[in-house]
Amino acid sequence: MPPYLRRPKTVGVLVLVVIAMAGVSQQLFSLSALGATASACRRISLYAEELPSSPEGDIRLGYGTTPDTAATPGPLIEMTEGGCLKIRLRNDISRATLQKLKDQFGGESDLPLAVSIHPHGAKYHRDSDGTMSSDSYVLPGQTRTFTWMATQNTAGYWWYHDHVIGTEHGTGGIATGLTGGLIIRRPGDLHPDVPTFVVAMGDGFTIDYRKYPDTPTFEAREGQRIEFLVYAWGNETHAFHLHAHSWADNRTGIFQSGSDTAAIDNKTIGPASSFGFQVIAGQDVGPNDWMYHCHVQFHSDLGMMGFLRVLPA
Amino acid sequence: MPPYLRRPKTVGVLVLVVIAMAGVSQQLFSLSALGATASACRRISLYAEELPSSPEGDIRLGYGTTPDTAATPGPLIEMTEGGCLKIRLRNDISRATLQKLKDQFGGESDLPLAVSIHPHGAKYHRDSDGTMSSDSYVLPGQTRTFTWMATQNTAGYWWYHDHVIGTEHGTGGIATGLTGGLIIRRPGDLHPDVPTFVVAMGDGFTIDYRKYPDTPTFEAREGQRIEFLVYAWGNETHAFHLHAHSWADNRTGIFQSGSDTAAIDNKTIGPASSFGFQVIAGQDVGPNDWMYHCHVQFHSDLGMMGFLRVLPA
Amino acid sequence: MPPYLRRPKTVGVLVLVVIAMAGVSQQLFSLSALGATASACRRISLYAEELPSSPEGDIRLGYGTTPDTAATPGPLIEMTEGGCLKIRLRNDISRATLQKLKDQFGGESDLPLAVSIHPHGAKYHRDSDGTMSSDSYVLPGQTRTFTWMATQNTAGYWWYHDHVIGTEHGTGGIATGLTGGLIIRRPGDLHPDVPTFVVAMGDGFTIDYRKYPDTPTFEAREGQRIEFLVYAWGNETHAFHLHAHSWADNRTGIFQSGSDTAAIDNKTIGPASSFGFQVIAGQDVGPNDWMYHCHVQFHSDLGMMGFLRVLPA
Repeated sequence: MPPYLRRPKTVGVLVLVVIAMAGVSQQLFSLSALGATASACRRISLYAEELPSSPEGDIRLGYGTTPDTAATPGPLIEMTEGGCLKIRLRNDISRATLQKLKDQFGGESDLPLAVSIHPHGAKYHRDSDGTMSSDSYVLPGQTRTFTWMATQNTAGYWWYHDHVIGTEHGTGGIATGLTGGLIIRRPGDLHPDVPTFVVAMGDGFTIDYRKYPDTPTFEAREGQRIEFLVYAWGNETHAFHLHAHSWADNRTGIFQSGSDTAAIDNKTIGPASSFGFQVIAGQDVGPNDWMYHCHVQFHSDLGMMGFLRVLPA
Repeated sequence: MPPYLRRPKTVGVLVLVVIAMAGVSQQLFSLSALGATASACRRISLYAEELPSSPEGDIRLGYGTTPDTAATPGPLIEMTEGGCLKIRLRNDISRATLQKLKDQFGGESDLPLAVSIHPHGAKYHRDSDGTMSSDSYVLPGQTRTFTWMATQNTAGYWWYHDHVIGTEHGTGGIATGLTGGLIIRRPGDLHPDVPTFVVAMGDGFTIDYRKYPDTPTFEAREGQRIEFLVYAWGNETHAFHLHAHSWADNRTGIFQSGSDTAAIDNKTIGPASSFGFQVIAGQDVGPNDWMYHCHVQFHSDLGMMGFLRVLPA
Repeated sequence: MPPYLRRPKTVGVLVLVVIAMAGVSQQLFSLSALGATASACRRISLYAEELPSSPEGDIRLGYGTTPDTAATPGPLIEMTEGGCLKIRLRNDISRATLQKLKDQFGGESDLPLAVSIHPHGAKYHRDSDGTMSSDSYVLPGQTRTFTWMATQNTAGYWWYHDHVIGTEHGTGGIATGLTGGLIIRRPGDLHPDVPTFVVAMGDGFTIDYRKYPDTPTFEAREGQRIEFLVYAWGNETHAFHLHAHSWADNRTGIFQSGSDTAAIDNKTIGPASSFGFQVIAGQDVGPNDWMYHCHVQFHSDLGMMGFLRVLPA
């Protein structure tokens, strides 16, 4: 049994928070050392399901928190440093569909017909890796629980994805929609005034697996604190640009006094990287439908764009 | 009328500077709150013009500050945080040329035959966005004034470009030369000893829309403070490398004591990103014609290179 | 004679270290100003040699520290700020092989049949640039000494490579194996508990010029401090991902209290960029064969992967 799951010295979340805020170094801190127990974990369910095909006829899959509510991208998951999360994942995808994707993406002969979930940023033991090599996947009709730990210094804007459909790297699961956003906050971090805007930049000139005009229009009122989470999946390099707003190229996007961090309004992002930022909607610039788009020119020309609608305060 | 343009509580630039230097947070500060007025803006003119075709026979366009002096890339524009700029842009490009580019780049049917200017980094209201969707462009033979505001935390090495020629994203305007560098300085920032070296890395293995040996040779004497502004345009990812000089991967390139920022001498840059840095020419390495080049190997082999000529002190 | 080589005011390394640790600014410090002498440099030999062809029949070259021990990638070189290194490079590659690579990569007609070595990060004078334009290369059967200086603020995870084989940019030398890792440490930097793991991400879906399962398995015990040095070569953009471990996106990968640096576990890296980081093997996650791979999906599917084997403590 790994140290993280050892019982019974339960330490309250309050203590974790205090220690995190005191800024002790990474080396002195770990959830396991503090004896956090599995029982302290928040629990959610996820259902991996088949969705209607894309306009091009491609297979579409999605994660949902309840049966028959799966979407692409999947639900945004939030954690706080010091916390952990147990995800009970049920595989409702048919063997036939999984076999089709294995054929299409050229998966290894020993690749199981299964689904998994693999987070970036959060920590996990071998049995929650979500990979073929660690045998941590879910066969059709079965369920499996994955545990993610938001240990110190994991705060960030991340994403999660399948790691076994199509190929050993989940190339088929990722391409068909099995991805979603993950935010780990540090205690004391500011929260946005409206739900986080998730932008998944992917192959085929897509944002959130759609092309303009089917991409999301994000909405806020002038003066509200808004938050973007951007991640890239697939094979291509993208460039996220937002009109009339800029942010600090750091952990939160918020400028720190005395910092030498650069301001940016356009970020180059290759596959599997992710970032996020908070800004005040319309600050200094006022209301408008402000464009966001990939700044690789032919990507934006072919549909990688949408609008941030800033309404009057 | 947007708050920024409201009269008449004019606040002197000195006050803005003092507040900026006091390091108050982004949330407490805005030009509009301080009642800066349009009359406080510096004014320049820009002329969008047709230039002789490229060696390959491609259309070439450029911005210039006076008639018949347009160049590719356009003039370097400098601002300081707390300031603003009014650009009176005149469109001297023919309808026929704009139609050719719309045909060539596949622009939307409702795309106007017009030109615009859109900055990165600086702030602007809807009427200065430079986009089709905000109706902020200039028809042939007409003029329009665009207002850019260098509010707090906008300091950086940026660029500007057309956003309506060829496609809704200005893909044709950008490809034919309608781009230029923009620097926003923080009050107190050091200035270089010689004019800033602008490196536009673009499609077709070009630097400043040219291939070696037609790329610029930048010149300075050993010991002089020099400054590079690098931006990328088009569809490709590049890698800017400068021989024998390295810099901090932060806002200015200057190393800060106690900072954990990495030193770099090669930076991956995708479309529309930009960065800049200051270094001392020849420091520790002496005079030479030091190469700068894209480090994507076949890009440099096909002409993306030039020299920084460091002369004896 | 360049100032760096002037005699005779030898200043001990101890003094350099004290000054470096005092955090004086870049502008006040240089090895030359302190009168460091050539005699203070550490000396090594490198041999550029031909290796057996790749499985695909391609020419393979390598650097080695003794005759007949060349490898691909070459030896990891370590320096400390304040130090310098003299590398006596011998060219044991035949003219016939160099001519083949010049033909294959389309080298300029005046390109010499020679080899060189060019570092990123370290400083050097013109005669150690390793380029055709500075005449600093080595003909077959000859030797030449290159001097690298680890002046202040050069600390980082870097690489070195040939700059004259195949083309003026060393495209042939780099593609056939003439690259290696270079670490410059700051006095006081932590050292890893096991030798540094070097990951060269290159064309042809390769890591260290190999495809899985021939890529290295890096090994450490849970709780040991490990260090990765990652560099990219060639034409493509990659995405380095390590399972179950994350690090600060700064100079060392180690989180600093109070810093606003983002945590990452996936880094986009274009040609010639490099980075490194230290983490504690298996911290919070325990033993496992943890995957590292390029997260460009088709790159990983075609072999850009390997394992970090974390053994029980």
